[in-house]
Amino acid sequence: MIGAAPAGQHTVRRHNLALVLGAVAAAGRSTRARVAEATGLTRATVSVLADQLLAAGLLDELDPDRGTPGRPGNPLRLNPGGPGGLGVEVNVDYLAACVVGLDGTVRAQQVLGFDVRAAAPRAALRRAARLAEKARAEAGVPVAGTVLALPGLVDLTGVLCRAPNLPSWDGIALAEMLGALLGTDVEAGNEANLAALAEAAATGLRDFVYVSGEVGVGGGVVRNGRLYTGVAGFAGELGHIVVDPDGPPCSCGGSGCLEQLAGLSALFRAAGVDDVDELVARAREPRSRAALETAGRALGIALAATVNLLDVRDVVLGGVQARLARWLTGPLSAELERRIVSRELAPVRVHVSELGSYAAVRGAAGSVVSRVVADPLSVY
Amino acid sequence: MIGAAPAGQHTVRRHNLALVLGAVAAAGRSTRARVAEATGLTRATVSVLADQLLAAGLLDELDPDRGTPGRPGNPLRLNPGGPGGLGVEVNVDYLAACVVGLDGTVRAQQVLGFDVRAAAPRAALRRAARLAEKARAEAGVPVAGTVLALPGLVDLTGVLCRAPNLPSWDGIALAEMLGALLGTDVEAGNEANLAALAEAAATGLRDFVYVSGEVGVGGGVVRNGRLYTGVAGFAGELGHIVVDPDGPPCSCGGSGCLEQLAGLSALFRAAGVDDVDELVARAREPRSRAALETAGRALGIALAATVNLLDVRDVVLGGVQARLARWLTGPLSAELERRIVSRELAPVRVHVSELGSYAAVRGAAGSVVSRVVADPLSVY
Repeated sequence: MIGAAPAGQHTVRRHNLALVLGAVAAAGRSTRARVAEATGLTRATVSVLADQLLAAGLLDELDPDRGTPGRPGNPLRLNPGGPGGLGVEVNVDYLAACVVGLDGTVRAQQVLGFDVRAAAPRAALRRAARLAEKARAEAGVPVAGTVLALPGLVDLTGVLCRAPNLPSWDGIALAEMLGALLGTDVEAGNEANLAALAEAAATGLRDFVYVSGEVGVGGGVVRNGRLYTGVAGFAGELGHIVVDPDGPPCSCGGSGCLEQLAGLSALFRAAGVDDVDELVARAREPRSRAALETAGRALGIALAATVNLLDVRDVVLGGVQARLARWLTGPLSAELERRIVSRELAPVRVHVSELGSYAAVRGAAGSVVSRVVADPLSVY
Repeated sequence: MIGAAPAGQHTVRRHNLALVLGAVAAAGRSTRARVAEATGLTRATVSVLADQLLAAGLLDELDPDRGTPGRPGNPLRLNPGGPGGLGVEVNVDYLAACVVGLDGTVRAQQVLGFDVRAAAPRAALRRAARLAEKARAEAGVPVAGTVLALPGLVDLTGVLCRAPNLPSWDGIALAEMLGALLGTDVEAGNEANLAALAEAAATGLRDFVYVSGEVGVGGGVVRNGRLYTGVAGFAGELGHIVVDPDGPPCSCGGSGCLEQLAGLSALFRAAGVDDVDELVARAREPRSRAALETAGRALGIALAATVNLLDVRDVVLGGVQARLARWLTGPLSAELERRIVSRELAPVRVHVSELGSYAAVRGAAGSVVSRVVADPLSVY
């Protein structure tokens, strides 16, 4: 069924505007005639709605291939100058901001190394707000919404409820605080969840599990192109899937969590190195190789549990797991091959993210754009 | 947004009919005036739609509290004689059939001990079809659809793709076969998934994870009142979440799966007993106690992984896990308490199913009824 509100003429128009905008977005560029075909709407209806979307600055009409401007043959596209999204990230050791345009292109991107652990929340947010203002000014497009990416459990109201790596920040309404600094509404989300959304946009995958981490290991589940948030917004904590119940104690209070076997601290300890560059340089030495093998197996065990539970057929490695993928994917895939009940029925593919450390902030900005495309009336 | 098809007058009527029927279903009984309040539709619209649903035999009007029949004050309810659902189950050692009425009451229920492993699929299905005919005749209501519950991975087209405990049945189109015997369309689903739906109906829970088993351990994830099926229909395989990677080999090809630590074979072996009655009788003896403790811990570890991944806050134990709940819940809850990252932010409740071995077949029948309520036009 189609939602819980009563349907009437207003709902129909809202729905059909989104259908038209969505069809253009999916095609990249499309004529009114092709939009009519793709949506099942009549050409006349499409023309009326397209004109409204053009007037609102959400669509853009390209130079006619032939004929007169405004005619059915002219290609439409999402307006690159239309309302975009602003993403801001406060992470353990950096701040970032990014504006993504309505057409999905990155309009501005700012990153700044910053030891957030050593700063008061207000000071860190002030710095992040300045970064955001800079990105907004550089972007040259209006901004339809702002989303803040945070490294911890964020509830559906935008409160950072628990951040194992920023324990003194627990319970602070950071979205509200940033909103006051920027003079606008701000929503917040978990960084790995938002990074998963960026992956969805970058790869076109609609159903997958994303795993990514530095010291902590986080993740996100994308189902039907949307984030699976869970009841309270805390879903996707792949780092705390138990891989070995008698393994090392974890910051979460448990033991043998994935994070304790595949997170950076664990890897550094096991390999006897100090940073990722050193780990990469020494990856062929026996001690590093063994550490990477253990981490890869642990990832495979946790991801096999995820696939058995959720029947996702695509797995995306992000963050440092992407950088180390060359060494992790062998043992990881071997565990998947052994442990997924439905392995012979449908293949599971392992992908490596190419977004690097911009994934979360891009996902934050992009989530605003997705919302505009899904409900264009919201920005009229 | 509200779906992918174009919206028009037909869609609006379809949507609003479902709104009215759903509002009555949610309330148990309700007047036209209260339905208007609950749905946001005008009283006039509700009256028109209610009359259509009465004429179609989906609603039933009760004796007026006051006033004339057909007036706004008269209570409406789902018609107990309206179209119901037929559920059929073929499991490892029994067959079952059940008809659930439109109002959710069980109209007929049949179960038969039957060694399915020793029978050819066609012979077992013929026996199941006879049981289904008997239930259908006894029910005294029309049947709007038939769903077959099967003990294994069932794809979205109804094929039993993999059944570790009925290996020679793999790949057989059992739904089609039963459909030919009954002269009607039949859909198929995984039994634990369908049992989870029965739990949803019986308890009113809308977001939970269900775990249940005999020899195998299965499960189901219910999100927003609906089953989480995954990409190909294989979701919910809780029994193959890895609890101890170096544990006993599993029928799935992996090792240390939950099933190998909390399934019946594992429990019997560890406790040195032959059946569940004996296990219950000896539950206080040290060897049985240790076996139940191990199983409870294993369940807790697998369920903690599930909660961390999906942020469900309710867990339901079914099947033999329900029968043994008295001994399992202590160690199970201790693991949840230790291993759930968001444990201090939102409680996780453990429930024990009361549906016994009828859960799957009731869920199968009930899933048909839910579909009728969600889209009443489908049975006009």
